[in-house]
Amino acid sequence: MSVIDLNSDVGESFGSWTMGDDAAVLAAVSSANIACGFHAGDPSVMAATCRSAVAAGATIGAHVAYRDLVGFGRRFLDCSPTELADDVLYQLGALDAVARREGGEVRYVKPHGALYNTIVHHEQHAQAVVDAVRAFSPDLALLLLPGSIALQKAEAAGLRGVAEAFADRAYTPEGTLVSRREAGAVLHDGDAVTERMVRLVRTGTLTAIDGTDIRIAADSICLHGDTPGAAAMAGQVRAGLEAAGIRIEAFA
Amino acid sequence: MSVIDLNSDVGESFGSWTMGDDAAVLAAVSSANIACGFHAGDPSVMAATCRSAVAAGATIGAHVAYRDLVGFGRRFLDCSPTELADDVLYQLGALDAVARREGGEVRYVKPHGALYNTIVHHEQHAQAVVDAVRAFSPDLALLLLPGSIALQKAEAAGLRGVAEAFADRAYTPEGTLVSRREAGAVLHDGDAVTERMVRLVRTGTLTAIDGTDIRIAADSICLHGDTPGAAAMAGQVRAGLEAAGIRIEAFA
Amino acid sequence: MSVIDLNSDVGESFGSWTMGDDAAVLAAVSSANIACGFHAGDPSVMAATCRSAVAAGATIGAHVAYRDLVGFGRRFLDCSPTELADDVLYQLGALDAVARREGGEVRYVKPHGALYNTIVHHEQHAQAVVDAVRAFSPDLALLLLPGSIALQKAEAAGLRGVAEAFADRAYTPEGTLVSRREAGAVLHDGDAVTERMVRLVRTGTLTAIDGTDIRIAADSICLHGDTPGAAAMAGQVRAGLEAAGIRIEAFA
Amino acid sequence: MSVIDLNSDVGESFGSWTMGDDAAVLAAVSSANIACGFHAGDPSVMAATCRSAVAAGATIGAHVAYRDLVGFGRRFLDCSPTELADDVLYQLGALDAVARREGGEVRYVKPHGALYNTIVHHEQHAQAVVDAVRAFSPDLALLLLPGSIALQKAEAAGLRGVAEAFADRAYTPEGTLVSRREAGAVLHDGDAVTERMVRLVRTGTLTAIDGTDIRIAADSICLHGDTPGAAAMAGQVRAGLEAAGIRIEAFA
Repeated sequence: MSVIDLNSDVGESFGSWTMGDDAAVLAAVSSANIACGFHAGDPSVMAATCRSAVAAGATIGAHVAYRDLVGFGRRFLDCSPTELADDVLYQLGALDAVARREGGEVRYVKPHGALYNTIVHHEQHAQAVVDAVRAFSPDLALLLLPGSIALQKAEAAGLRGVAEAFADRAYTPEGTLVSRREAGAVLHDGDAVTERMVRLVRTGTLTAIDGTDIRIAADSICLHGDTPGAAAMAGQVRAGLEAAGIRIEAFA
Repeated sequence: MSVIDLNSDVGESFGSWTMGDDAAVLAAVSSANIACGFHAGDPSVMAATCRSAVAAGATIGAHVAYRDLVGFGRRFLDCSPTELADDVLYQLGALDAVARREGGEVRYVKPHGALYNTIVHHEQHAQAVVDAVRAFSPDLALLLLPGSIALQKAEAAGLRGVAEAFADRAYTPEGTLVSRREAGAVLHDGDAVTERMVRLVRTGTLTAIDGTDIRIAADSICLHGDTPGAAAMAGQVRAGLEAAGIRIEAFA
Repeated sequence: MSVIDLNSDVGESFGSWTMGDDAAVLAAVSSANIACGFHAGDPSVMAATCRSAVAAGATIGAHVAYRDLVGFGRRFLDCSPTELADDVLYQLGALDAVARREGGEVRYVKPHGALYNTIVHHEQHAQAVVDAVRAFSPDLALLLLPGSIALQKAEAAGLRGVAEAFADRAYTPEGTLVSRREAGAVLHDGDAVTERMVRLVRTGTLTAIDGTDIRIAADSICLHGDTPGAAAMAGQVRAGLEAAGIRIEAFA
Repeated sequence: MSVIDLNSDVGESFGSWTMGDDAAVLAAVSSANIACGFHAGDPSVMAATCRSAVAAGATIGAHVAYRDLVGFGRRFLDCSPTELADDVLYQLGALDAVARREGGEVRYVKPHGALYNTIVHHEQHAQAVVDAVRAFSPDLALLLLPGSIALQKAEAAGLRGVAEAFADRAYTPEGTLVSRREAGAVLHDGDAVTERMVRLVRTGTLTAIDGTDIRIAADSICLHGDTPGAAAMAGQVRAGLEAAGIRIEAFA
């Protein structure tokens, strides 16, 4: 029987502002990427989200980010590797303390936004993230883009690196994501996305944007929940995978 | 042989701004109250301070505060008890993660500034701090003003409450601190302060501002290091206590 | 012909987080209270909101607040009068610069949240707000709760103080707002609220929660837009007032 | 008779943290670059600094920055041009409001730290700064590095661009600054620096690090005041220029 992890970003509200439909998302995923206060998620939002994740049976991951609240962590910040490692460690410790009070604990780390994209290629920032995670606990996994430098560095440091695929994104023939600036980059048809993910889990194969088949090695599938349509699609993908006999299970 | 703990606030720099002479202070104290990012202390300052505290053999305490960087945690903030407990837990986890990487760990908590003063009398904020500390670890001690409501609540919750005296502050005949707004509230004569603290440790007695003797029960003495004179006095008090045969030892 | 101003809070989004239905609200009001970055509203949100307000023909007011993003300005902060005056002046200048680029300008000030409530009774904070507004421009009006100390101080300082009524709030027989903690404090029936406001504008009279009639002197009516129902009610109240022959016109 | 402007960064304290010897610097310069809250300078620091600048007869400039308090504005932040323009306009308006209450006004803009360095070459960020300054007032000057793209764009937009030289920095034979990472980049001999600046003002010529003479067109000289030695050198340079018959006068 096939097994796959489903992950999604949750806990991205802040103070009086809400974002996303966390309840719907937590019902669909096995792994919850929870914001740690640097791009979203104040301590009370973090606590409520951990509580919900524990109740839903989702594994808790730290969704660490550059310190940039107004930019939602989506802007590259040219901090030093030391600053970055310390910032990541701070976020990890903060979330873990909150998670433990709520009956959970941090089991993995997924960098967010600009940090996620930067450490695909930025050696020093990638190493800083890996160093911080390893310092916190060598038992944590790192959830990353396949082929990213951070994934190599995680494994070189003895950490478990987990590669993810994106359910609602088109891929180039080379196996990278089609840029959001291009037409067709984001997939909106829930049936097609579900079928695509069932095939990916069963065969490790996806159809790229040019119609060719490509192989994608992924131990987790990233779903989105920041729009009503996305949250609905998350549920549909999970249901479709289960209907196809695939078990949804956290990797960590 | 008499034993006393000496504590002081350190790690109160932030980014490019420095505060205090941490090296001098850490050489004098047995317990280091380290800021956790809410009133001072960014993650890199926290890391450097933990490293220095470990090297100096000082026990690490979390100097938790209201979220108020520009006000340095010195202004009362009317947050809800839930928000406060979550904020304290967040700070605790963050500092502990950083401290552990540096070879230490958080062993006690001392609330800072307005939070310290508020929980002398504010039942809900006192309870929130106690709840957060206990949730993080029932083995942590809480360093507080003698007679504060928070001290009672800490002990009621099964936490160790530790009362402290202030080396450089005058006391009223009732055993409370003379307000800084009044003349003579702060003591500047290092010899007199040292002699006063030796007497306190040996006899539990201080001379109040009106000349009467009062009893103060304290397991720690708070020193200051935010001015050159204060850091020098910290060293002098330690030397004077040791010369009087008193052992300086962390309570936690 | 009767005339009344309608005001509402807008521009309370921040970064990637949105709040309220500003387009619907701006279509209903004559005066737009725009957040200035301290409780909500980053510079780009402020610019977009000023642009929309100018396009809608709404007068721009500065919705100044305590510096408390995570608490949305709803928590009392015990800052000094000097700090508060400087914070208010800073917000005023920032919003005015943005508003002028968009073809508008700040014409009045409405304190937000905890600051609004505090200066009903807190003499020093009330004076600080008045001082800051007057320093920026003696031509600005201050929009406040009837009977508040700030209103008295504004007028004593030669500023125009404008009192407001709340469309969707119940009043005590003494003419103060029924606390939100009590049943019936917030009115949800759009027809009843509209009728109530028409009567208020025509006669200066409202029915209090105990059924007695009270007199309320108000030159502006505050509407809310932070929920879909509230934004719809804002439009309904405006339409009802106009249908009753009342002209909606900014006071400033 | 020769005339030159002397500028320096002031108002870079924040909350309880102080930086630099502003009193000494303000006695030396004709133009004061005052931080606006994004990298340093809370509203009360801004007010005190404006007051001191007015008292010292120094012209007030807005020292605008990326939003990065913990990084002191020294880290590149990949914000959008729209965000940057709005952030700059916000800072300008805020400082001008504070300055006017203190009897001054903003007369020029000098970008700070990473923003200053970025707009030497980054077209979009350079244009964003120019757009924001021009929107605030076409009468403001922009103080920049000679040869920077921002200087070209300022002049293309009809703004006055003012080029500056750095008193305590070595220059390459090509007329650019020697990187701080290289030996000899920063000059520490007050006599030599003073003599060098007298020659620059009189002849437009400096000796580069390789001993060759180069021409530098500068209408202002930047002094530093963030260390005791730097503040002392600022006074020495001013005295030396005046002793050489050169008048110190603000460019704006």
